Amino acid sequence: MANTINTKTMPGFMELLPNEQRLFNWMKNTIQKGFETFGFTPINTPIMERAEVILAKAGGDTEKQIYTVSKLATKTTEDIALRFDLTVPLARYVADHFYELTFPFRRYAIGKVYRGERSQAGRFKEFYQADIDVVGNKELSFRYDAELPSVIYTIFKKLNIGNFTIRINNRKVLNGYFESLGLSEQATSVLRSLDKLEKIGEDGVRKELEALKLPEDVIAKIFEFTQIKGNASEVIRCLKALDIANDTFARGVDELSQVMGFVREFGIPEDYYTIDLKIARGLDYYTSTVYETTLDAYPEIGSICSGGRYDNLASYFIDKELPGVGISIGLTRMFDQLLARNIIRPEAATPTNVLVIPLEDQFLSKAMDLANTLRAENVPTEVSFEQGSLRDKLEYANKLGIPYVAFIGANEVEKNVFTLKDFISGTQEELSTEQLISKLRRS
Amino acid sequence: MANTINTKTMPGFMELLPNEQRLFNWMKNTIQKGFETFGFTPINTPIMERAEVILAKAGGDTEKQIYTVSKLATKTTEDIALRFDLTVPLARYVADHFYELTFPFRRYAIGKVYRGERSQAGRFKEFYQADIDVVGNKELSFRYDAELPSVIYTIFKKLNIGNFTIRINNRKVLNGYFESLGLSEQATSVLRSLDKLEKIGEDGVRKELEALKLPEDVIAKIFEFTQIKGNASEVIRCLKALDIANDTFARGVDELSQVMGFVREFGIPEDYYTIDLKIARGLDYYTSTVYETTLDAYPEIGSICSGGRYDNLASYFIDKELPGVGISIGLTRMFDQLLARNIIRPEAATPTNVLVIPLEDQFLSKAMDLANTLRAENVPTEVSFEQGSLRDKLEYANKLGIPYVAFIGANEVEKNVFTLKDFISGTQEELSTEQLISKLRRS
Repeated sequence: MANTINTKTMPGFMELLPNEQRLFNWMKNTIQKGFETFGFTPINTPIMERAEVILAKAGGDTEKQIYTVSKLATKTTEDIALRFDLTVPLARYVADHFYELTFPFRRYAIGKVYRGERSQAGRFKEFYQADIDVVGNKELSFRYDAELPSVIYTIFKKLNIGNFTIRINNRKVLNGYFESLGLSEQATSVLRSLDKLEKIGEDGVRKELEALKLPEDVIAKIFEFTQIKGNASEVIRCLKALDIANDTFARGVDELSQVMGFVREFGIPEDYYTIDLKIARGLDYYTSTVYETTLDAYPEIGSICSGGRYDNLASYFIDKELPGVGISIGLTRMFDQLLARNIIRPEAATPTNVLVIPLEDQFLSKAMDLANTLRAENVPTEVSFEQGSLRDKLEYANKLGIPYVAFIGANEVEKNVFTLKDFISGTQEELSTEQLISKLRRS
Repeated sequence: MANTINTKTMPGFMELLPNEQRLFNWMKNTIQKGFETFGFTPINTPIMERAEVILAKAGGDTEKQIYTVSKLATKTTEDIALRFDLTVPLARYVADHFYELTFPFRRYAIGKVYRGERSQAGRFKEFYQADIDVVGNKELSFRYDAELPSVIYTIFKKLNIGNFTIRINNRKVLNGYFESLGLSEQATSVLRSLDKLEKIGEDGVRKELEALKLPEDVIAKIFEFTQIKGNASEVIRCLKALDIANDTFARGVDELSQVMGFVREFGIPEDYYTIDLKIARGLDYYTSTVYETTLDAYPEIGSICSGGRYDNLASYFIDKELPGVGISIGLTRMFDQLLARNIIRPEAATPTNVLVIPLEDQFLSKAMDLANTLRAENVPTEVSFEQGSLRDKLEYANKLGIPYVAFIGANEVEKNVFTLKDFISGTQEELSTEQLISKLRRS
């Protein structure tokens, strides 16, 4: 019977070895802790939702990727679907619990989402998103649009993944500009094409715009516009100097200018953010600020953290005006890409800091005592229970990357010490319990 | 369009408000940290598995509860199912990564699993399990069977949910006893009935045993046997005194006696564990030690943490002999039951420890500076960005349970201080940044 069942990880699913998993969890915890120090509160919605909830906002490509769920026994569909992002569940949650929540509602969510994409390298069918959103009741200050980049700046610095740039734009600036070119009807299509700039390149976008029957000079103007460069105040000055008579454009420039002013006030170093007029975001529901974040040394990875502001989070679910702004880290894909490029490196395959080895069975109880004492001091500790040779036990510690081994035998009991072997320095010393605690707690 | 979509949480799914979610996460983190201080390492397998993997071990009731997954667009089943526990994925993981793992493999997993049960109070279709297992290659010391209760003891003490009893038994003791009564063929059915003792009571079990055509005196003996009471050594003595000539029974008593000896050596207080000969566990794969854990004051909740030893974890997936022992906390159900009984109580709806309020817009930058300084010291901090009145801002803090508010206005800037309001004591004082840090870091 064995071996006839395929036990390989399915394509499109990430499964990690323990040392990689520990690194992944460290990143996830760092992100979570970062969210919490900014006062975001956790919610954890089911992975399954009523199909009508999931389908309310899904359209086009997203709808094709949705998974539905059935009971095996009855083969009956349950009208249940798996979530494809964390924003739809947030909208449903806010609608359902509207009267129990305090606004502005600052929530974070870190969880798995599902998209039945065609299998290809770097694309996942199951992946983690780590989202923060601030949802207002009727109104929401643009200061929050500047706060999110400061959360991302703080967290990505802690993740230690090299320099990065948070690229900020405003949908109204783009839409207003397109309108001023006489492209009111095609504005959404132009936005969607522009969003593919990184994937399909300038030539690809140009072809799509030509297919939309845009005149050559208009296409040229669009490319020229999106390439406006400089620091935030320079770009804002440029935009104003264009002197475009379009209300949407004017409002967009005003919003963008406000947001960039707050970003500076909030103390994010200038190297880490920029206005990038190429940023469009594919999703329909953004109405103002939009963000993408790229690693300076690895632009080919694309955006690892994106989001934006929406006028109305939950219009499909509740008759309330709920403006919000949010940003999402694509954790699984980011981890996969960083690992593949050795930007992050897995270390030990276990949290254990010390392996306690009783040299004879009679010392087992003393070994457990020491382990319990160390654990009470938050030192991850394992006791060796196997019957094998000392050599086997040291090899076990070595393979897992456990940095210390503590022996207890007749000699140690007599002297009331433990012998501590340090695998990194190669040294060995006899230490009292107190000395052992202070040494291992520090390391 | 709004309001036509049902946004209520589906029956059988747990969805929490922020204050409850924070309490749930605290429990989950306490469990996770407990697992790690014992040197268990995390793995995180996909929620979806090939249907053949999920079905390899499922049978009977479990199979009826399995969810399968399809693509909405194509309506085609993908031969993918959702996991119903964390043990089958562990078996598949160990088989797939056998040559990359170090044994004994100590892994923990905390994740959601899915069972399409009929909806009823206290039963969940989506729920968290928190599992630890130690998997050996060919052999595994019975010391691990005693280590697991010491992990559970340590964690449940930290969860502060009152007194509890870890009930330990051995399948071989039960099976051997049933064999000695001439019930070799019915042994499994008798075990399964016995496992329902808490659910259906002694009368219910008696009826099931009668349905198996067991003679009345045999049924009486079974009940008498399972009611043997006393501390571990007394029960072991009783079992030996029964003088039963059955090899399985003798091996079971020997294993149980060894395990209980180690449990005592490992320092678990006697009040927290017992031999309970009624513990059977429904699942087929346990072959030796079995555990259940109940709260002393709330026996009606049933077992909140169960498990046992199996001879061979992954025989369906790989031709290797992999004995193991594991235990699983039913986190969602446990949380639900504890919350319903006020054994645990939610507190603040946010991690924020202090809300910084700039009294005028010109102080926004100073407010963000303070917030960034506090966050660097791991003090969860929020800045008030809304335009509302001071009263509104204090009400916001109060509603969320934020304990401190720090004001910054002209007076504070002049004196180079912040005014800190303590909601609990009701006091208000002017503090320098350093004083503020030391006060908030402590609290």
